[in-house]
Amino acid sequence: MPTGLEQILELEQLDDRLFRGLSHDPRTTRVFGGQVAAQALVAAGRTVPGDRAVHSLHSYFLRPGDPSIPLIYEVDPIRDGRSFTTRRVVAIQHGEAVFQLSASFTVPASGFEHQVPESNAPDPDTLPTGDVWVKNADPKTQTWYAEMRQRFPLDIRFVGEAAHQFNNPGATAAPHRQIWVRSSSPLPDDPLIHVCAATYFSDLFLLASALLPHGFVMGDERLLAASLDHAVWFHQPFRADDWLLYVQEGSWAGVGRALCRGLLFGRDGRLVASVMQEGLLRQK
Amino acid sequence: MPTGLEQILELEQLDDRLFRGLSHDPRTTRVFGGQVAAQALVAAGRTVPGDRAVHSLHSYFLRPGDPSIPLIYEVDPIRDGRSFTTRRVVAIQHGEAVFQLSASFTVPASGFEHQVPESNAPDPDTLPTGDVWVKNADPKTQTWYAEMRQRFPLDIRFVGEAAHQFNNPGATAAPHRQIWVRSSSPLPDDPLIHVCAATYFSDLFLLASALLPHGFVMGDERLLAASLDHAVWFHQPFRADDWLLYVQEGSWAGVGRALCRGLLFGRDGRLVASVMQEGLLRQK
Repeated sequence: MPTGLEQILELEQLDDRLFRGLSHDPRTTRVFGGQVAAQALVAAGRTVPGDRAVHSLHSYFLRPGDPSIPLIYEVDPIRDGRSFTTRRVVAIQHGEAVFQLSASFTVPASGFEHQVPESNAPDPDTLPTGDVWVKNADPKTQTWYAEMRQRFPLDIRFVGEAAHQFNNPGATAAPHRQIWVRSSSPLPDDPLIHVCAATYFSDLFLLASALLPHGFVMGDERLLAASLDHAVWFHQPFRADDWLLYVQEGSWAGVGRALCRGLLFGRDGRLVASVMQEGLLRQK
Repeated sequence: MPTGLEQILELEQLDDRLFRGLSHDPRTTRVFGGQVAAQALVAAGRTVPGDRAVHSLHSYFLRPGDPSIPLIYEVDPIRDGRSFTTRRVVAIQHGEAVFQLSASFTVPASGFEHQVPESNAPDPDTLPTGDVWVKNADPKTQTWYAEMRQRFPLDIRFVGEAAHQFNNPGATAAPHRQIWVRSSSPLPDDPLIHVCAATYFSDLFLLASALLPHGFVMGDERLLAASLDHAVWFHQPFRADDWLLYVQEGSWAGVGRALCRGLLFGRDGRLVASVMQEGLLRQK
């Protein structure tokens, strides 16, 4: 069993605006980007008054993180405004910035309401669990899935085309997929923990959506793939220990990069968060 | 005639990583956000080796800019890597940060190629010029257009629904519009100038797309509207003094905010840049 998300998101506070986080996955050679982004957002959130919730983050991955030592998170209080609070966080290892994040927090308000993206996936309860589903997948996907289950404390259920793609490596498809995802263990009620948990897993599957037209799956040894940036907008409160539908579009690929768009929906069809990520994506 | 984009993008270099930019529009009470973002990107780009081009920027608007005094741009060289160079820029006025931007630059590479979003607008040459088109618009839109032409050195041509919306204030429509836009004067060949010019105008029209379902147009005195953040991904080289199709979707609105997605296409249908912006959007 991998370490639970609640533990991954626990930071030691070294000073008012200085935190330390651990990597719980020392088998890898580089820290999972979603972990750094999520921990950085915890650090930012811990320095913001409790009446303000995060509504967006923008981040860059700067250098590979070293999983054998802790990460230091330094919070810079850029602005404490009447309605908005902005924080910048730099994650440091070996004296160098490995990651930087800016996040904005605000008080609740009301206004115009509409939502364009729609969610049309079958309810997760009607889909096979990942553990059942993977038994029919090809061996490469089985290896990928087993490793994913060991490293990440998440439950996932594949919808439609994503499932098809994983069963047919080499097959090409439009760059769209849908995956139900949730924390595999319950999380405390603190809303910050839920947005940080979503930040964690939003970095996990997104870039792979840009591979679908090209017949590759993540983990292919012929691939060079890395997250370059990561941005999330949080629209409405949600729980990350209940199912969220992660709808992904690999919108564009070219010149060795790809830009992907993610949408997170609650089971009731509400859009709760939007994600954008550019990644490095090349054949070696 | 408003000051041309080339002049707006001219910065005075005060030191290796310190620049000063002017606002050319002192009639307004706050600096146009696109100007600050574009000038900050010029500042960042001037500190990066010439073999690297910007591929993304992420920024936050922190405080209203004062158009009566210059803006100081302070560049922080976060990373000079083998393939990627990252810069952070803070725009300062009255001793306070009014804006912050991070941008990433890279060397050309090659890899997988695909593009999901498609461009399907009529060629700009087949559309009436904005100046002709506005004669049939309602008086409110005529006022808005005249002010826009005085303040911004841009040519624009409205496509389909956007035109309809501007002719029928109070009417509601799906939150989609398409506008052809270009610099109204020729720009020098330096590719940095073209991405900065696109950054400039990408902030101008986007947030208004989220108003379409609600029967409001920008400039309505009952509205409270402001850009909160701005992100742009540059996919391929383009010229901003030739027509670019700006396709806009006001994807989501709620709790006093809206998230909009923009896509910039060349006349040949190539996706050259993607834009995301969250804004404050409320009735007073």
